[in-house]
Amino acid sequence: MSDFKRIVITSGEPAGIGPEQIVQLAQSDLSFDQNVECIVIGNKALLEHRAKQIGLPINIEHFDFNQPASKNLPGWVRLIDIPLAEPSIAGQLNVKNADYVLQMLGTAIQGCMNNDFDAMVTGPIHKGIINEAGLKFTGHTELLAEASNTEQVVMMLATPQLRVPLVTTHLPLRDVPDAITAELLESVIRILHDSLQNQFGIEQPKIFIMGLNPHAGEDGHLGTEEITVINPVIKKLQQEGMDLIGSLPADTIFSPTNLEAADAFLAMYHDQGLPVLKTLGFGKAVNVTLGLPFVRTSVDHGTALGIAGTGKADINSFQYAIQVALEMTGKP
Amino acid sequence: MSDFKRIVITSGEPAGIGPEQIVQLAQSDLSFDQNVECIVIGNKALLEHRAKQIGLPINIEHFDFNQPASKNLPGWVRLIDIPLAEPSIAGQLNVKNADYVLQMLGTAIQGCMNNDFDAMVTGPIHKGIINEAGLKFTGHTELLAEASNTEQVVMMLATPQLRVPLVTTHLPLRDVPDAITAELLESVIRILHDSLQNQFGIEQPKIFIMGLNPHAGEDGHLGTEEITVINPVIKKLQQEGMDLIGSLPADTIFSPTNLEAADAFLAMYHDQGLPVLKTLGFGKAVNVTLGLPFVRTSVDHGTALGIAGTGKADINSFQYAIQVALEMTGKP
Repeated sequence: MSDFKRIVITSGEPAGIGPEQIVQLAQSDLSFDQNVECIVIGNKALLEHRAKQIGLPINIEHFDFNQPASKNLPGWVRLIDIPLAEPSIAGQLNVKNADYVLQMLGTAIQGCMNNDFDAMVTGPIHKGIINEAGLKFTGHTELLAEASNTEQVVMMLATPQLRVPLVTTHLPLRDVPDAITAELLESVIRILHDSLQNQFGIEQPKIFIMGLNPHAGEDGHLGTEEITVINPVIKKLQQEGMDLIGSLPADTIFSPTNLEAADAFLAMYHDQGLPVLKTLGFGKAVNVTLGLPFVRTSVDHGTALGIAGTGKADINSFQYAIQVALEMTGKP
Repeated sequence: MSDFKRIVITSGEPAGIGPEQIVQLAQSDLSFDQNVECIVIGNKALLEHRAKQIGLPINIEHFDFNQPASKNLPGWVRLIDIPLAEPSIAGQLNVKNADYVLQMLGTAIQGCMNNDFDAMVTGPIHKGIINEAGLKFTGHTELLAEASNTEQVVMMLATPQLRVPLVTTHLPLRDVPDAITAELLESVIRILHDSLQNQFGIEQPKIFIMGLNPHAGEDGHLGTEEITVINPVIKKLQQEGMDLIGSLPADTIFSPTNLEAADAFLAMYHDQGLPVLKTLGFGKAVNVTLGLPFVRTSVDHGTALGIAGTGKADINSFQYAIQVALEMTGKP
């Protein structure tokens, strides 16, 4: 079993597209022709019901921790079954099933912390319905950090073509400049550099770093944070031997030459880096959490309630999330 | 002459790539097979010298306002000659020639205001050297607005594929949220809508509008400016009949469907909209100033001092700036 990797997949909000995406994914070889076993967490009756709804066959076997890992078979799901409070209707959120979502995540996190799993891939959830149910929840990333006692994580979006990690994530724009401290930036770059080396296997990662202001501040004419905060951190880490380039203007950083050369483009905030990534990689982006004690990737889309139950959901992002998780665990 | 359009082109910083770009451009038919005459403003000896440096032939005739307009001939430049204070060496800025740059611009603006020209296209200039010369100058756009008594202009970047106008432009990021007032936003949308109708000939322009905050504020969870400022302005103008969509999250606004449908994507600030535009349209972007009493487009690159005099400068953006100016004047 030691040469096998086990990846755990949470099937997400029961009323969303997550469960049928699992059915769609299971039609083909989830092992991607490698020594990998994918374990799904979800609800058996739900998966069978959605399979019927979208007209695809599915066989479900209960996952047994004691069995040695082996490849997934097309058409089969190895499941950790979690009970739903009520049967879920596609497209209709139900507060009573909110706790089910958190139970799935808890099970996945526990398994990763115990080293039962080498990585976790999370399907789409609906933050609003969990909060409506009165449960404290601000997002996947925050829950994972808290549950694993991790002080600082880094959110990174990736497509087959480029990686865009973020210094700040879901903050109102007016809170961004003060949030970017030298301490935070240094910590983010260290986590990123370490992950690129040890999880993505890049010996000397080349990281391009954006400024905070337009034109990266234009020598202080358009803002001073590059001079007072960003560039000194870059210089310090360059002196340690890191291959960092910047700070550079965000509008021209994604030149063809830089796209070729860079292992990652570090953006200071959400809308500075993600529009390019999502435009270039539409439908095939993955959300990766760096800095956790285990590998975690996620689909880059929501629950798509409007098309849940129709079988129209795209599985490109989900497939890519599994592939990247696999890549990050070190392909066996 | 009435069916002919006259476009005036300023050749930009004398030590930069502008002059040799004029020589390169003049090798082919600057009239683009239409009833257009392009008039260049620059220095005769400089153009001849750069032509020799990059090994291209050039013939220069002095432009005569009294001659009826006619097509440009390949290999010829019709010039308004402005004296240089000192001969310009490629790649070497010279404060003594800073006033020459402003004289070119003044001549072009005057000609546009007098209706001698239908549009102006500006080559790359170097703001720093003009300021170093002790001349008051904050940029092309500001000078044009002031010289034409225009209160509000809108900066828009465009590629053959998309148009990205900006609500705010060259501001430190921390000043952006407070700069976006309902009054400014309404004025920007009106100028944009008017220009798309009357200059770009789009009867009912469809304008996609970004929020200020990530996820367009996520119903107030990630910032409130969408609720308090942006959406009310959009609603008001929708009620007047404008086809406005938004506010939408900036990271997913450039979907293939939206790229197909939109006539423009209005960004709230520089680094929210321009990275996508420049990445998709690398080397072929044009900067357009909307709201002036005349058409003005500009190259989207700097003076590239490092390669001036080598003939290596790309002229795609310059050519496209002329084409867009032509398009905006209403093709004759």
